Amino acid sequence: MANGEAIDRLKEALRRLPGVGPRTAGRMAFHLLERDREGGKLLAQALQAAVIGVNHCERCNNFSENRLCDVCDSGKRDETLLCVVETPADLDTIEQAGAYTGYYFVLMGHLSPLDGIGPDQLGFERLLDLISQGGVQEVILGTNLTVEGQATADYLSDLLQSREITVSRLARGVPAGGELEYMDANTLNQAFSDRRLLVRHPDSQS
Amino acid sequence: MANGEAIDRLKEALRRLPGVGPRTAGRMAFHLLERDREGGKLLAQALQAAVIGVNHCERCNNFSENRLCDVCDSGKRDETLLCVVETPADLDTIEQAGAYTGYYFVLMGHLSPLDGIGPDQLGFERLLDLISQGGVQEVILGTNLTVEGQATADYLSDLLQSREITVSRLARGVPAGGELEYMDANTLNQAFSDRRLLVRHPDSQS
Repeated sequence: MANGEAIDRLKEALRRLPGVGPRTAGRMAFHLLERDREGGKLLAQALQAAVIGVNHCERCNNFSENRLCDVCDSGKRDETLLCVVETPADLDTIEQAGAYTGYYFVLMGHLSPLDGIGPDQLGFERLLDLISQGGVQEVILGTNLTVEGQATADYLSDLLQSREITVSRLARGVPAGGELEYMDANTLNQAFSDRRLLVRHPDSQS
Repeated sequence: MANGEAIDRLKEALRRLPGVGPRTAGRMAFHLLERDREGGKLLAQALQAAVIGVNHCERCNNFSENRLCDVCDSGKRDETLLCVVETPADLDTIEQAGAYTGYYFVLMGHLSPLDGIGPDQLGFERLLDLISQGGVQEVILGTNLTVEGQATADYLSDLLQSREITVSRLARGVPAGGELEYMDANTLNQAFSDRRLLVRHPDSQS
């Protein structure tokens, strides 16, 4: 490269961000240096602060700067419900949706044996401890509806079977606003088999 | 958000990178904090160093940590040729291709009146000064073949007409490995009108 080590080092460091290849890294470095040096400074400071200051909530394993995250610390949630999610982003999305009132447990990933991520890495032990402390009546498996998320939910479901608690899974079906024409076969079949009864015929057996 | 100010600030700062929206920023923050804190530290340091240490080459306007960039400082290039490009990334790409042996001038953008980017912002004055110092016999307009790059090249071509130098433009045509079936009409028409003569008929007039 013709423009010096500092830029090469910056491009290389930017490539450690997920989804950033050499071209994108170059464009980012160019943007920051040519149009937004202030942004570059802010990002450096924010990274430094977050890398040092952010740890995990002792209870739910979500990112937190304090011993307990805001949700666990609030004391105002329904302690009979515990929702298991894959990432802090999933937790944020559920919080923004606003309907769920219980607590969380964040796995920080999903089962992925090929990458060496098993039950130990995802803190299943900690999850069981948390449930053993009592109070939880229903565990809602809120992992993604992907193959890996599904496998993780299945594993957890087996693990929790011996405990005297309800275990549930997020409903699968056509998303709100979804058009049947554009749904994949899996989703559609699932929406049929999990269909919700609206009116029961008086003579119906089931 | 349920996980504290440091993460929110990090996500916000990541959004100053081009092409990064809220979801991508969240994924990047998660990746750095959960899987690559070392990368986060490196990126913070690289940003800090680049924002402070990188300036512009006094001669060609490319990014450089020194008064002159490596190309201008080499003293081994063909000083009769000057290639005008839009960005340092373009310069790098040409250098990697390896066939060009002259010097460069980097505009750091293209003409874009709606964004307030005119001849002054692109350093046309500096470019003319550089040419006035003598030695340059041909200016190769190496801006992109986009509408904006083309407009910039046209403007520069007019500006340089009064100087006693050759002004040329990168060839337009079908890219190496390109299949005619998939070329757009513009490219194909250009390839016809700029076709290269291989054998001249002895009776030909032109």
